[in-house]
Amino acid sequence: MSEVVLSPADAQSLVVAILLNHATSERNALSVAKALVSAEMDGQQGHGLSRVPSYAAQSASGKVDGRAIPAVTERQNAAVRIDAAGGFAYPAIDLALSELRALARESGVAAAAVFRSHHFGQAGYHAERLANAGLVALVFGNSPKAIAPWGGSDAVFGTNPIAFAAPRVEDEPLLIDLSLSKVARGNVMLAQQRGEPIPDDWALDANGQPTIDPEAALQGTMLPLGGAKGAALVLMVEILAAGLSGAHFGYEASSFFTPDGAPPGVGQLLLAIDPELLSGGSFAARLEALISRIDAQEHVRLPGSRRLALRRHAQREGLHVAAGLYNQLCALNRR
Amino acid sequence: MSEVVLSPADAQSLVVAILLNHATSERNALSVAKALVSAEMDGQQGHGLSRVPSYAAQSASGKVDGRAIPAVTERQNAAVRIDAAGGFAYPAIDLALSELRALARESGVAAAAVFRSHHFGQAGYHAERLANAGLVALVFGNSPKAIAPWGGSDAVFGTNPIAFAAPRVEDEPLLIDLSLSKVARGNVMLAQQRGEPIPDDWALDANGQPTIDPEAALQGTMLPLGGAKGAALVLMVEILAAGLSGAHFGYEASSFFTPDGAPPGVGQLLLAIDPELLSGGSFAARLEALISRIDAQEHVRLPGSRRLALRRHAQREGLHVAAGLYNQLCALNRR
Repeated sequence: MSEVVLSPADAQSLVVAILLNHATSERNALSVAKALVSAEMDGQQGHGLSRVPSYAAQSASGKVDGRAIPAVTERQNAAVRIDAAGGFAYPAIDLALSELRALARESGVAAAAVFRSHHFGQAGYHAERLANAGLVALVFGNSPKAIAPWGGSDAVFGTNPIAFAAPRVEDEPLLIDLSLSKVARGNVMLAQQRGEPIPDDWALDANGQPTIDPEAALQGTMLPLGGAKGAALVLMVEILAAGLSGAHFGYEASSFFTPDGAPPGVGQLLLAIDPELLSGGSFAARLEALISRIDAQEHVRLPGSRRLALRRHAQREGLHVAAGLYNQLCALNRR
Repeated sequence: MSEVVLSPADAQSLVVAILLNHATSERNALSVAKALVSAEMDGQQGHGLSRVPSYAAQSASGKVDGRAIPAVTERQNAAVRIDAAGGFAYPAIDLALSELRALARESGVAAAAVFRSHHFGQAGYHAERLANAGLVALVFGNSPKAIAPWGGSDAVFGTNPIAFAAPRVEDEPLLIDLSLSKVARGNVMLAQQRGEPIPDDWALDANGQPTIDPEAALQGTMLPLGGAKGAALVLMVEILAAGLSGAHFGYEASSFFTPDGAPPGVGQLLLAIDPELLSGGSFAARLEALISRIDAQEHVRLPGSRRLALRRHAQREGLHVAAGLYNQLCALNRR
């Protein structure tokens, strides 16, 4: 399959140019481009350049307000509520991170809830930026409905990512980033395209029954990881990300992909904790002790290590972009 | 099997009397007794009266300091670090809750980290008490080693519970309380006693291989829920509960059961969030909208509903305690 190799800087410039062509402000375009290129570098293509055509179309149609200016609408000593104003999520989260960095230092812990928001990509990208400022981060987001309550058949919740990051003294932050569906819906779509069955614990059909038929699964709901316990975690994240911020729940949110209809209006919650205060100054050394204990075992890899390896490779060798996607991006740039 | 029926109040008095007999202060005995009886009422016998003999023995031997006075050792605007001082966990968590109730109102969010702590029983008990004060709560704890890093064979982490609670206007708080092992180790012990095999996804043997032999499983490690993703959550909770508080990690913690050796010294992290600020006043109504959407589906139960039903039953009908355990408690009371 033919590919084009782009430097991360060139990829970022291309995404900025396309968004400027599609009713997005310069500041917002840069924020979006950085996040998408970062995901692409980390091997998270589903949150990377593949999103550019649908982002551009949504900004052009007005489903996303590309010129939105996010704002703090509520504030207490250690917590802020941020209105993403129907724009892209990333500029609102940039504002949240800047608030959290200051508040967590003063208060030991801080929270930012974002509403009227959109797809926020790799949850770990945001957590990692807090960890790069020396903070332990927890990030929760909701997304359009895909998962039913445990025992049910109608999707209510999104696949609802959780990300966690902790700073390390001499290494990149330790990063955990996962969505709470057993597998991503993209895996079901791939099986459908290939005409292959899926394992019976990936999804339910429209009647709430396990299915190995990808067609039936796409009409039904995705299963959470870990059975009933996992379903409870999905509910927890729905309440943290959308309930606390006053955003749309999964069953109220429109698609992150199509340019038509109302904005998705989902929510995010970001928590930042100053680890040195709470641990009495021991956190950095203790985390290294734990990581040594983990690394001492054979066949064990720290979460996030594959992602970091891909990132380093992309920094050295550039991004390999499928020719089809690259041509689509160039056409959007010329438009 | 013969049983004794005790009112919750009588059960509490009995536990207090036993602990007073075993080198525990009155204040600490009351805190412990309330927590254990609450777990017993909720059908969580593993965190209930069955713990009294080992708690009493640990206080008598000095492995737990029954007269410990927990104290705040570090404080910032919205965060406190609490030294459980080698005592029972519950008095330290009482102090944490009292701090959190005040701090979260002022700051929108607050954190309390507890170190030099012990078994904290039902994680949900603590989260629920924050929700009863109108706060959204997240509670994390670590425990003695039981789970290996993903791909490994040596236990490093505990089964590491997560609890979440959210206040409701006209109902008991919504409560989620789960440990991150696929099943509790007690299930493996039961299979061993019965001479029955276990499913192959519950545990690994000492070489890190899946096993259906309960003997081999007890020599090995418990599997987390949800595979590699679940294992990442276990690591996250280990860092939140023990890393942030500067407590012992699972691989450093002694048993919660035996009276000999050093104190376990585990840790807990409690987060409290004022939902009305962050949601712009919409939280209560929005949570009810989400719950209605869940309840509208057939075969679906909210997490925690079985526990609440058992609690109501125990309030009406009393606690059914196995005669063997009851006789053991009476003997400890007479000693």
